[in-house]
Amino acid sequence: MIENSVLRELRSIVGREWVHTEPEDLLCYGFDATFRESLPDAVVSPATTEEVSRIMQVAYREEIPVVPRGLGSGLAGGSIPIHGGIVLNLTRMNRILEIDRANMVAVVQAGVVTADLQAEVARHGLYYPPDPSSQRHSSIGGNIACNAGGPHCLKYGVTADYVLGLEVVLADGRILRTGGKTIKRAVGYRLSDLFIGSEGTLGVITEAILRLIPPPKATCTAMAVFPRLNDAGVAVTRILEAGIIPVALEIMDDTTIATVEAHKKMGLPLDVEAILVIETDGEPEQARREIEQIAEICRQNGAREVRVAADEKEGAALMAARKSVSPSLARRRPNKLGEDITVPRSAIPEAVARIKEVSRRYNLPIPIFGHIGDGNLHPNILFDRRDAEEFARVEQAAEAIFRVAMELGGVLSGEHGVGLLKRDFIEENLGPVALEVMRAIKRTLDPKGILNPGKVLPEGGGER
Amino acid sequence: MIENSVLRELRSIVGREWVHTEPEDLLCYGFDATFRESLPDAVVSPATTEEVSRIMQVAYREEIPVVPRGLGSGLAGGSIPIHGGIVLNLTRMNRILEIDRANMVAVVQAGVVTADLQAEVARHGLYYPPDPSSQRHSSIGGNIACNAGGPHCLKYGVTADYVLGLEVVLADGRILRTGGKTIKRAVGYRLSDLFIGSEGTLGVITEAILRLIPPPKATCTAMAVFPRLNDAGVAVTRILEAGIIPVALEIMDDTTIATVEAHKKMGLPLDVEAILVIETDGEPEQARREIEQIAEICRQNGAREVRVAADEKEGAALMAARKSVSPSLARRRPNKLGEDITVPRSAIPEAVARIKEVSRRYNLPIPIFGHIGDGNLHPNILFDRRDAEEFARVEQAAEAIFRVAMELGGVLSGEHGVGLLKRDFIEENLGPVALEVMRAIKRTLDPKGILNPGKVLPEGGGER
Repeated sequence: MIENSVLRELRSIVGREWVHTEPEDLLCYGFDATFRESLPDAVVSPATTEEVSRIMQVAYREEIPVVPRGLGSGLAGGSIPIHGGIVLNLTRMNRILEIDRANMVAVVQAGVVTADLQAEVARHGLYYPPDPSSQRHSSIGGNIACNAGGPHCLKYGVTADYVLGLEVVLADGRILRTGGKTIKRAVGYRLSDLFIGSEGTLGVITEAILRLIPPPKATCTAMAVFPRLNDAGVAVTRILEAGIIPVALEIMDDTTIATVEAHKKMGLPLDVEAILVIETDGEPEQARREIEQIAEICRQNGAREVRVAADEKEGAALMAARKSVSPSLARRRPNKLGEDITVPRSAIPEAVARIKEVSRRYNLPIPIFGHIGDGNLHPNILFDRRDAEEFARVEQAAEAIFRVAMELGGVLSGEHGVGLLKRDFIEENLGPVALEVMRAIKRTLDPKGILNPGKVLPEGGGER
Repeated sequence: MIENSVLRELRSIVGREWVHTEPEDLLCYGFDATFRESLPDAVVSPATTEEVSRIMQVAYREEIPVVPRGLGSGLAGGSIPIHGGIVLNLTRMNRILEIDRANMVAVVQAGVVTADLQAEVARHGLYYPPDPSSQRHSSIGGNIACNAGGPHCLKYGVTADYVLGLEVVLADGRILRTGGKTIKRAVGYRLSDLFIGSEGTLGVITEAILRLIPPPKATCTAMAVFPRLNDAGVAVTRILEAGIIPVALEIMDDTTIATVEAHKKMGLPLDVEAILVIETDGEPEQARREIEQIAEICRQNGAREVRVAADEKEGAALMAARKSVSPSLARRRPNKLGEDITVPRSAIPEAVARIKEVSRRYNLPIPIFGHIGDGNLHPNILFDRRDAEEFARVEQAAEAIFRVAMELGGVLSGEHGVGLLKRDFIEENLGPVALEVMRAIKRTLDPKGILNPGKVLPEGGGER
């Protein structure tokens, strides 16, 4: 509960229409793209960094939890206000402040929708590569807070690789500016990186300076059908060993193929263990030559059929199978828990085999797909939440999948973050010293523990 | 002074032949590649991480300063033991522990010489791009601690972009492992990045997991001669706007050209304001096509002459002019202070003009050269240190150059670090809040202030 005097103070900062406490409004800000939910006490929607700073000063003084929120598309529960308090809705801060063509940088507010930035940047003849599947319904601030990835990150890197600087409001309301427009800098600690991937637990990201690059001139696409998944894994290694870095290198396993085909009737083969969808980009001839080389490598390594798209339209049709995965899963069972493990590339076939064993052991369908090129798999556990016995098995299966990743030298999350759903496994994954250091940093930057409490780090360990 | 009982303890950890306290040994570890020096009380040379941990436990208990040191090639005074104590010489820890071809990563100890790693990686058909000029006499640990750059960083990024994980010994001897072999990870705070560029003030880097890439198949080189420096600046912008990212894009101004020519007699023109040396790499035809495009852009934008090398041997000859800069400077005057400012690319011509004004004002030759493609310039102030009046002007000129960078939205250092020489300007460059946050992190990770005290952060502000 937030006292009325404090609510009045918050209203005086942002205007009374931007502080909401009515149950129907709170409901809209109590969930994300997971199946968890919890209501805040108030939703406050600032328009400027100055307002965010003043809100944080009040929250700091009153020790009220503050949960920064972009568009709520998170897949780890990171923006769910599990301890109530204020949801700080940043969607009004959605201005692209500058696109500086000469220096190839964009300066944007945190609430800008990623796809909107990409479209605007394209109008200036430039390119912002990170492409989380949520790009039409997630914000740059959220992408940075979770260090979002996407299929194109194999060649182009993740969100962190495009952040040159940040404006961050600290727990006590101080405004910190990190980095700047220069590509290189070696001046003190790398503070931008402290906030990238911190999921709102160390500060509120309000602005970002982003690196842009020249757009690729052409994209080529191929689809390769592998009767045996192991062969697909070997083909991936051979492609990369040949010195080719495709822009995307995506896998769908048999369960995923069957799920997509049941929904979309695309004519996908139902008697194979894996399909790879591969994109190359760059100069037209080079992208074409590379996709032909890749097709040949796939054929030599056990692919039964390889289709190379004749043009970008046909390429989009091949990629459509991969893009249909998430909507198809949603139709097969009422609920899904989308995992996000990453293992060293060479361990992918073993990881898939072990996750299939988890699927059998807990009697749950677990389609596996994802970014095989960088070792990032999305096993999705499908279930019906209304069935309590089944739901209990889901939690056990998720834990078993985490353990597969860790046993193979991998991590709990490649691009979704830890949030609420994975926090209790972070010590097992990273070890006690890493957790101690993270807790020490959290205490230093958020001594009262008001910033997105209960996220990333397990509770009860002293971060408050 | 370190007590005899403590020295005995240190000898029991590393063996008596690896603790040195004789004046002639201390002298060898009291300087780096700047003109500053200061003697340690002891030089301790561990062979293993375990030994580093035990040394740190002793130093922590006794509150003895510890200065981690690779090969002492730093250009900012970062490894000079200004408060005495222990120089922790990491050159015995020079093993390449693993080159994992399937996952394209190398695991190395901190003391590995960068060029040695590059040669070994090449034998495995892979490539480690960061190429500081010191690569034959600097270590990976030092490169990481300073976030070293180099000419090829325009296309390939700096050292930070290749660090996947670290082993770090903390101030109290705890051993922290960050990151791992996976390319992507979104699991808690980005601890590797906290130590990259921290110049030994937050922990001792003992091992690193490095990302490798396929090597480029060909390199093409061109040299373009510009009567007017402004035109060279415009040409650089046009090249990048054309969607070409050269692997190197280097500039030499008139003073630099004259200095190189006086020393090497290469036939460089002495009546022009700037020479650009440009490299492209990748697939042979693409690298060739791009260098031809670049040559054409230079001609259209005021280049008097453009030479495109016919092959890699001729290319190396063109690049030799740029590589001769540093040895030539050393012959012109007894001492040099190599600065390392970075400005937004578009501000380069203005930065050069202002630095030339600084040169006139303080009556000191200041050749300007560097990585124009990423806005990173190395104005080198040439002087004779024995002349006290001249030396006083050097310090004023250096300060004036810092101010040029800051006024143009740039930073004090692009790739050399802050160390001792720039620490007193960091607050002016980054602002008070950034400095407060850095000090808070320093206190958290090094509560007794024993790790490389007096570096990066200005002294007297409570970091000890």
